[in-house]
Amino acid sequence: MNAAAFVRGAAHVEINEVAPRDGLQIEPLVVPTEAKLGFVDALSACGFARIEATSFTSARAIPALADAEAVMHRMQRVPGVRYTALVPNLRGLERALSCAPDELNLVMSASETHNRANLRMTRAQSLAQLEAMIAEAGKAGVPANVSLSTVFGCPFEGEVDDAEVLALAQRLAEAGAAGITLCDTTGMAYPDQVAHLCMAFQARLPAAALTIHLHNTRGMGLANALAAWQAGVTRFDAAAGGLGGCPYAPGASGNVSTEELVHMFAAMGVETGVDLGRLLQAVAGLPDMIGRDPGSQLLRAGPRLRTHRPPDWLAAHFAAAGAA
Amino acid sequence: MNAAAFVRGAAHVEINEVAPRDGLQIEPLVVPTEAKLGFVDALSACGFARIEATSFTSARAIPALADAEAVMHRMQRVPGVRYTALVPNLRGLERALSCAPDELNLVMSASETHNRANLRMTRAQSLAQLEAMIAEAGKAGVPANVSLSTVFGCPFEGEVDDAEVLALAQRLAEAGAAGITLCDTTGMAYPDQVAHLCMAFQARLPAAALTIHLHNTRGMGLANALAAWQAGVTRFDAAAGGLGGCPYAPGASGNVSTEELVHMFAAMGVETGVDLGRLLQAVAGLPDMIGRDPGSQLLRAGPRLRTHRPPDWLAAHFAAAGAA
Repeated sequence: MNAAAFVRGAAHVEINEVAPRDGLQIEPLVVPTEAKLGFVDALSACGFARIEATSFTSARAIPALADAEAVMHRMQRVPGVRYTALVPNLRGLERALSCAPDELNLVMSASETHNRANLRMTRAQSLAQLEAMIAEAGKAGVPANVSLSTVFGCPFEGEVDDAEVLALAQRLAEAGAAGITLCDTTGMAYPDQVAHLCMAFQARLPAAALTIHLHNTRGMGLANALAAWQAGVTRFDAAAGGLGGCPYAPGASGNVSTEELVHMFAAMGVETGVDLGRLLQAVAGLPDMIGRDPGSQLLRAGPRLRTHRPPDWLAAHFAAAGAA
Repeated sequence: MNAAAFVRGAAHVEINEVAPRDGLQIEPLVVPTEAKLGFVDALSACGFARIEATSFTSARAIPALADAEAVMHRMQRVPGVRYTALVPNLRGLERALSCAPDELNLVMSASETHNRANLRMTRAQSLAQLEAMIAEAGKAGVPANVSLSTVFGCPFEGEVDDAEVLALAQRLAEAGAAGITLCDTTGMAYPDQVAHLCMAFQARLPAAALTIHLHNTRGMGLANALAAWQAGVTRFDAAAGGLGGCPYAPGASGNVSTEELVHMFAAMGVETGVDLGRLLQAVAGLPDMIGRDPGSQLLRAGPRLRTHRPPDWLAAHFAAAGAA
């Protein structure tokens, strides 16, 4: 399309807050369980559609999330919020299912090298395992979403072929995945790429729930979110404070910041259901929890209509000049 | 428009690099003239359409740019680049015209309070002075662009009325302004607002050259640039390293980062004429020049296709597993 225009997406979108999992798993500081519970509970009061509360990985691989069961059992579940957990393999599945998650989030990469580095399996091995996990989860009555990493580019391989991504998504959808998340794992996505892959996905798999997972590594986080929204996407992952990153891409900054995403949608009149004031309170508590300041620009600057007092000299200056 | 789509803007856009003026004017460190010249000359090698090299304000108001004449006289002008200078008042105009600028950039605010705080004049006084300045510049054969501040919101007054902005733009265009820059001075703009004001501007003043000037205060810099591009805008201000800010809006971060804007356009196949590698070299020199690290995300992460070596254990692991 070439005529100047602004395309509007859906009037309502859903936010999946992933900081408790995708943010805390990579923080150098291991956050104590009590502090995590306070964080998850604060997020539960914000109005998110989903909260990814933890990950059932091995405590050896990710010590920061070794308390997955405690978090799932002790958080205060708020009606209307769906609590999800990431599950990387069959061992994790059994643990997760013992904690009554509302949904599971499984994971594999679209690129072979990233799948091997991140999951120590070939893509073929991952696919076979995911199919078994989706079936197991189905028996337990728990929907399983699959997050496809590196669909917009791989930090080892470079460009990733859309056709491969769509074929993988189709195979997972046919295996019974409740939804697919297209993940820009290391912030390689750009707006028209995001829009076109999302539109192609929806054309090919109209019944599959599509979520987009974006990073802000190269400043394009919200631009990509805008393009995804224009392309019809209604489900967005985001992390409070922009937490997160990728150990395999040095310099990669974190996820799209939830507060900036919610703020942009609110300014455009798009309903997220999220209370920005409460969310900013939760973000304000992050430095205490993780021992560093994630540097939330929105927290620092305030929402766009937070006005400031004019300088004190102004009134006197213009009164004296006879101009006020 | 409501059907999912990705609207493409122009295939070629022009970048106006404003860091030497809009960035350095607010840095706490006064950069020595020699270092400034090195910076401007490095930028001249990048392929910008325009470089705003300095500002002819009073040395008392902005000591950092007291060397405006020296910069204009001693920089190495590269054919094809248009060198502009900001001029805030009639006193500055005479100084500027003695330095053979290719274009001038005049300034006033769309909101009354910001105009008074920033320029110590009412808007009526500013308008009268700008009309005189445009006429003077015209006599000297130098085109004068006007940057309209706070058109997407005022840090003192809040929302700014589009109708007032357009009326002001029309009056300046009728006075002979060569172009108008719509400035999001403190980062209050959001994408549909940007698109709609830019489309309304072009509908009303189709002959006026429109430039957009965006900040990244609330993370929306590139999202707003994308919306402006989709709305038909072809001229963008940006500052290397994302330098800049606004003294009247605490917490406001700087301009849209030139390297991130150029990188996004390049990814989308939009020609800017800017050599990203050279630009990143200039950005890499900023910490030495200004005595602080502006924290360029793109410099840290590298362009999107900068790939990394897989972890060393990978090959051995999969060879041993018989899976590689």
